[in-house]
Amino acid sequence: MRLARRSLAALSLAIAPARAQTDPLPSWREGPRRRAILDFVAAVTTPGTADFVPPPERIATFDNDGTLWVEQPVYTQLLFARDRLRALAPTHPDWAQDALLNAALAGDMPAVLAGGSAGILRLLGLALGGLSPDAGRRLAAEWLATARDARWGRPYTALVYQPMLEVLALLRAHGFKTFIVSGGGVEFVRAFSETAYGIPPHQVVGSSFALQPGQADGRITLTMEPRVDFVDDGPGKPVGIARFIGRRPIAAFGNSDGDWHMLRYTTEGAGRRLGMIIHHDDAAREYAYDRQSHVGRLARGLDDAPARGWHVASMRQDWAHIFPGA
Amino acid sequence: MRLARRSLAALSLAIAPARAQTDPLPSWREGPRRRAILDFVAAVTTPGTADFVPPPERIATFDNDGTLWVEQPVYTQLLFARDRLRALAPTHPDWAQDALLNAALAGDMPAVLAGGSAGILRLLGLALGGLSPDAGRRLAAEWLATARDARWGRPYTALVYQPMLEVLALLRAHGFKTFIVSGGGVEFVRAFSETAYGIPPHQVVGSSFALQPGQADGRITLTMEPRVDFVDDGPGKPVGIARFIGRRPIAAFGNSDGDWHMLRYTTEGAGRRLGMIIHHDDAAREYAYDRQSHVGRLARGLDDAPARGWHVASMRQDWAHIFPGA
Repeated sequence: MRLARRSLAALSLAIAPARAQTDPLPSWREGPRRRAILDFVAAVTTPGTADFVPPPERIATFDNDGTLWVEQPVYTQLLFARDRLRALAPTHPDWAQDALLNAALAGDMPAVLAGGSAGILRLLGLALGGLSPDAGRRLAAEWLATARDARWGRPYTALVYQPMLEVLALLRAHGFKTFIVSGGGVEFVRAFSETAYGIPPHQVVGSSFALQPGQADGRITLTMEPRVDFVDDGPGKPVGIARFIGRRPIAAFGNSDGDWHMLRYTTEGAGRRLGMIIHHDDAAREYAYDRQSHVGRLARGLDDAPARGWHVASMRQDWAHIFPGA
Repeated sequence: MRLARRSLAALSLAIAPARAQTDPLPSWREGPRRRAILDFVAAVTTPGTADFVPPPERIATFDNDGTLWVEQPVYTQLLFARDRLRALAPTHPDWAQDALLNAALAGDMPAVLAGGSAGILRLLGLALGGLSPDAGRRLAAEWLATARDARWGRPYTALVYQPMLEVLALLRAHGFKTFIVSGGGVEFVRAFSETAYGIPPHQVVGSSFALQPGQADGRITLTMEPRVDFVDDGPGKPVGIARFIGRRPIAAFGNSDGDWHMLRYTTEGAGRRLGMIIHHDDAAREYAYDRQSHVGRLARGLDDAPARGWHVASMRQDWAHIFPGA
């Protein structure tokens, strides 16, 4: 028992007094978005008020690509899939007949992206197919440990957004459970979510491949098939939330039209809600893209935000820092 | 921040000192099973030892029917489905042509049980089909609030096992996350898991029906179809664990051969593990059944327990009390 008591005490010390003394959102510049987050948290956690939400119902969901880390010029999981497929290609001569695979192996990312999320998930499925979920996650973790982003020369896990890490910490310090709800393959995201965001595997909802149970060497095995069995994107996000979380979030953060349904599902619930879109409008410090982008296209979200009360955070204006350690 | 700090402090006060002073398993009689649980918890939570497991990996999974609450003479969710189907039957004259539905409507439970878990899930799917997950859960909660078990005349949620509530509390006080991994329909279990066991919806893995996203009255809707899309039983339990929890448990509790794969998957992992089977051998205080039972059949588990190091807890010998407040 001593350990449990000490861990809880340490946790409480680590988060609460530090925040109470200092600014919980130092990377957010003063303005309506920063205030929207702080006001929302104060409102739903102040007992005795109309907006109060009991801790078990404090669920916040976050898209990953473009919301918690960089998604340009291509989704990171696609670069992982490309590298893995290149390693596997010599034993799969049949892949040469396949246009999508050929584009991936050649590194022709515009051609791959033109295939949309179905094509990307198909490539990831071929990259991970035949592996156990654990093995797939290990492979992704090993790749992430050595791969470097071309623009910054840094590991992809260093390209997470400091302002969003602060939002995650703020919400958790106020009794929220924070979930990732990503269109990305769930095992790829789980490979780094705990170290990068403090989000454990069971709080990651993502797209997935069919899992085949079996046996080998007297042990139970689980094998990922290359067949996608759930696409956690667009209308799939509310489905994933209902299935995995089992509760409508009271706050949701996204950045693309793939998050539109999640934002709606969240903010259509009764009571005080927070919906926020991260708008990539900072080509100097990160990227600038929205309506015309193949990656992270954002059009409906911008159109609907005012009427739906969603906050559009401007990277350029609202974020004093983009990456940790800046 | 004050609230978060106070909730954590309250939580820590509620569980830790009470346990440190008193017996954490008062309903478990002295003996090998009680010692197995306490030794396991001490081993995996003592830093600096070979068996130490860091808190994020302290995952424990529990079957529900027959492990956390009574499953005889028939699974409770089947009684809920029967009552719901009876209410719906007048508007479904076609159901009269269906042998399984006829048996359910007539209350002929032996005939229904002969159809196995596929038949039971089919009935539950028809009972819940067309509803949202939230509406299905509300309906189940309403039913549970008024339905009474025939033998004890008590609500089904009062027929949870006090010794298992103590195990859940003990594990959580030591940094474990506790999950239900049930063959039952996930929304039925979520209807009472938080109040009965302190297990939130996102820590309930269960069988599920296809969820259809849509729209009505300008809002996003989710509708359960009567079609089962995941059976979280037998070989499906490791699949459900990998998909929803994303981590191999280090402890698992079950009572029937539907838990055999989960027990294997758990105890085949490296390092110290705990596998335990609750053996229903107490006809006087609860029920006595195993190899011949249609509900909660237990044969392979009993055969394999010695070689696999699984502990078989005897309700009669190991449990001083069965139900809370006894």
